[in-house]
Amino acid sequence: MSIEALFKPKSVAVVGASGKPGKIGYAIMKNLIEYGYEGKIYAVNVKGGEIEISGRKFQVYKSILDVPDEVDMAVIVVPAKFVPQVIEECGKKGVKVLPIISSGFGELGEEGKKVEQQLVETAHKYGMRILGPNIFGIVYTPAKLNATFGPTDVMPGKLALVSQSGALGIALMGWTILEKVGLSAVVSIGNKSDLDDADMLEYFEDDENTGAILIYMEGVKDGRKFMEVAKRVSMKKPIIIIKAGRSERGAKAAASHTGSLAGADSIYTAAFKQSGVLRALTIGEAFDWARTLSNLPEPEGDNVVILTNGGGIGVMATDAAEEEGLKLYDNLEELKVFANHMPPFGSYKNPVDLTGMAGAEAYEGAVRDALAHPEMHAIAVLYCQTAVLDPRDLAEIVIREYEASGRKKPIVVAIVGGIEAKEAIDILNERGIPAYPEPERAIKSLSALYRWYNWKMKHRKE
Amino acid sequence: MSIEALFKPKSVAVVGASGKPGKIGYAIMKNLIEYGYEGKIYAVNVKGGEIEISGRKFQVYKSILDVPDEVDMAVIVVPAKFVPQVIEECGKKGVKVLPIISSGFGELGEEGKKVEQQLVETAHKYGMRILGPNIFGIVYTPAKLNATFGPTDVMPGKLALVSQSGALGIALMGWTILEKVGLSAVVSIGNKSDLDDADMLEYFEDDENTGAILIYMEGVKDGRKFMEVAKRVSMKKPIIIIKAGRSERGAKAAASHTGSLAGADSIYTAAFKQSGVLRALTIGEAFDWARTLSNLPEPEGDNVVILTNGGGIGVMATDAAEEEGLKLYDNLEELKVFANHMPPFGSYKNPVDLTGMAGAEAYEGAVRDALAHPEMHAIAVLYCQTAVLDPRDLAEIVIREYEASGRKKPIVVAIVGGIEAKEAIDILNERGIPAYPEPERAIKSLSALYRWYNWKMKHRKE
Repeated sequence: MSIEALFKPKSVAVVGASGKPGKIGYAIMKNLIEYGYEGKIYAVNVKGGEIEISGRKFQVYKSILDVPDEVDMAVIVVPAKFVPQVIEECGKKGVKVLPIISSGFGELGEEGKKVEQQLVETAHKYGMRILGPNIFGIVYTPAKLNATFGPTDVMPGKLALVSQSGALGIALMGWTILEKVGLSAVVSIGNKSDLDDADMLEYFEDDENTGAILIYMEGVKDGRKFMEVAKRVSMKKPIIIIKAGRSERGAKAAASHTGSLAGADSIYTAAFKQSGVLRALTIGEAFDWARTLSNLPEPEGDNVVILTNGGGIGVMATDAAEEEGLKLYDNLEELKVFANHMPPFGSYKNPVDLTGMAGAEAYEGAVRDALAHPEMHAIAVLYCQTAVLDPRDLAEIVIREYEASGRKKPIVVAIVGGIEAKEAIDILNERGIPAYPEPERAIKSLSALYRWYNWKMKHRKE
Repeated sequence: MSIEALFKPKSVAVVGASGKPGKIGYAIMKNLIEYGYEGKIYAVNVKGGEIEISGRKFQVYKSILDVPDEVDMAVIVVPAKFVPQVIEECGKKGVKVLPIISSGFGELGEEGKKVEQQLVETAHKYGMRILGPNIFGIVYTPAKLNATFGPTDVMPGKLALVSQSGALGIALMGWTILEKVGLSAVVSIGNKSDLDDADMLEYFEDDENTGAILIYMEGVKDGRKFMEVAKRVSMKKPIIIIKAGRSERGAKAAASHTGSLAGADSIYTAAFKQSGVLRALTIGEAFDWARTLSNLPEPEGDNVVILTNGGGIGVMATDAAEEEGLKLYDNLEELKVFANHMPPFGSYKNPVDLTGMAGAEAYEGAVRDALAHPEMHAIAVLYCQTAVLDPRDLAEIVIREYEASGRKKPIVVAIVGGIEAKEAIDILNERGIPAYPEPERAIKSLSALYRWYNWKMKHRKE
């Protein structure tokens, strides 16, 4: 039972579709249309009739069985009590995957869990898979599929985001839009009655549109399965997990929230470490790392070079690099190449200080030389906003040089400054070059890439 | 020799004023005018004539001695070689303070340091004080004074920012505008030939417009003096310091950057701790703390209450609180008051989960009750963006309730979400209520307030 149709359905039906703004069955139709899904969209609702959404008219089929063509995915929005019958009909129709938005199942207690189990049995009988229930939907940007009631305008990119929490998941979708984090997919897995985190990892393992996977997790049901899959997938792609409930009191609060016992946190820590999973402690840290891990190639060695125009931020980045165990390239003979791009009072020692006078030419030359040098394996470009060089111009220089070099090395950028600095950071992130407003965040993200890479290399030898 | 005139000059002369955009002597005139300085502004330049800036015409005096009125502050922008003579003239004129923007002194080596010393001797002979040289200027928002060549539109507020690094200082001014950090002052102290960090601390100690002080420091000259002053000032107002060069390699890079030996980092750590100084490791952390420390009153006890609409972010905040050693209020009898503002499946245990259904009324009631309760000493309001409540409306609710309560307790806010969430965060910060895009950042900032407060309480007893 492949779950390909969850990401690349040829047609989607919304069961419980509505023409009334404010309804979930309206929001999902609207997102499907406005995000540009190119397959067929069908509206299903026992009320029948006709509805208009985003300027498009839809005939409303009273049952999915009335839809004249094949349906790959049925997004189910009807109240819980009608779900069993709808699933039966979906089975008869030959639907492949069922994202069940509706809530009112396992999250309410034992009785709800039993109903959930029956839904799964029915679905499997017909060869269907269930996502959820109790979810906000699914996004897959390469297929222009946004079957959620979250924000419409997700930025395409290479990060797959999986969330167990619905409310937080939607909020994080918004965050990625604001912060220009490019996504391949957003999956709300909710109650995990059938498909779970491990299934998503297995799909993204071979998905060429996904470079890294970020999971917000409250607990796993089958720890052994998850670890096995995570370990295998980590050999190909980095996995970042936010797992709340680290502290004793936090774990208690989590237990009363999800109903599932979170388990001793140290067990998660050990399991993640063994599986190559990077555990992020905060949302910000997770997305910081994800930017770098989803967009950049693996390094070919340990030598990191820091280019900067500010002594202060150079020192701060060096502190962070040393604390993170990154190796700053030390070969003064070779570093001398940067002397061509700085005034006499600059320093080509690593961190390479191009000085506050560094303009477009200095950065262009230095970035190009660093990208071309075979022994410089990863680069951190730092810039403190000055009157000499508009940060947006710096962004264009870095993009041009990086593209010209064939994107073969990891590169991270940090720009400290005001509104223009923020715009420059957005420009870089939109082009898949990880950029941050603080030097330490750039360095720590590069370090996360090295941590994953080193785990992989060590594990490969075993 | 009071330095009052550095912050509240009755009149300012720019020596080296220029009518040409791109020149520093133009930028400073422009900022003085456009930021709304209400005292008299005089342009001085050996070239004489007349210049027009921001629609205002200025007669250019060939020497400060020609200015017909008294001059409190002379901002000096002329090349280094002319500075000695200018200072002599300023002395004769009866100027009180001299921010010397010009570079080309101590930062070039021993000879420059000697010249600097002579400048200071001349100034002191006339009862004048020098800020700099090698600085970008000074801002004091209550006097609408922006005598810098940095950004114009600094947001007024209660944080005093002092930077040893010029480039980073200007970049940080931009950052505060972008991130809505309200400032009372920005002081570039550069080479510290006369006035230094300790002098600034002493001024801000009694400045009613300043609630907290943030210093970016590369090294101190007189460690004993600094510590004594910092310890005394910390009893009244919190001091946050970013001191780069923590790591061995970072310290080396700092030494080659500033020329001054940074000294063993552990000495700084110990000295800061003893003086009640909060050491921030990154720019982001420093400003996060500064928001809370500059705007909020001291707590009257240890009991923290977390209000949230999302189980997930509630758990994350609880983890952070426990790790930071904050005490979550535990009295279930009293916490029951929140049951009035949640559906039956909510939880009034701390973290108080108002549930994803929480709208305006729920938050209004819960925030009001928490502010009113005598045993709830500090409050963290968390919100995960949902369709039920626009985050901007939440911001207005928190502002209204906090103002109505008389701003007597510390309160921090975290809102996770997209563009509306960011707008809500900005609205809160503009009104002096610290708000963050992540629960942990709110909690850690509240914890910084408690660290300072606890140091002060302990020290007071000694």
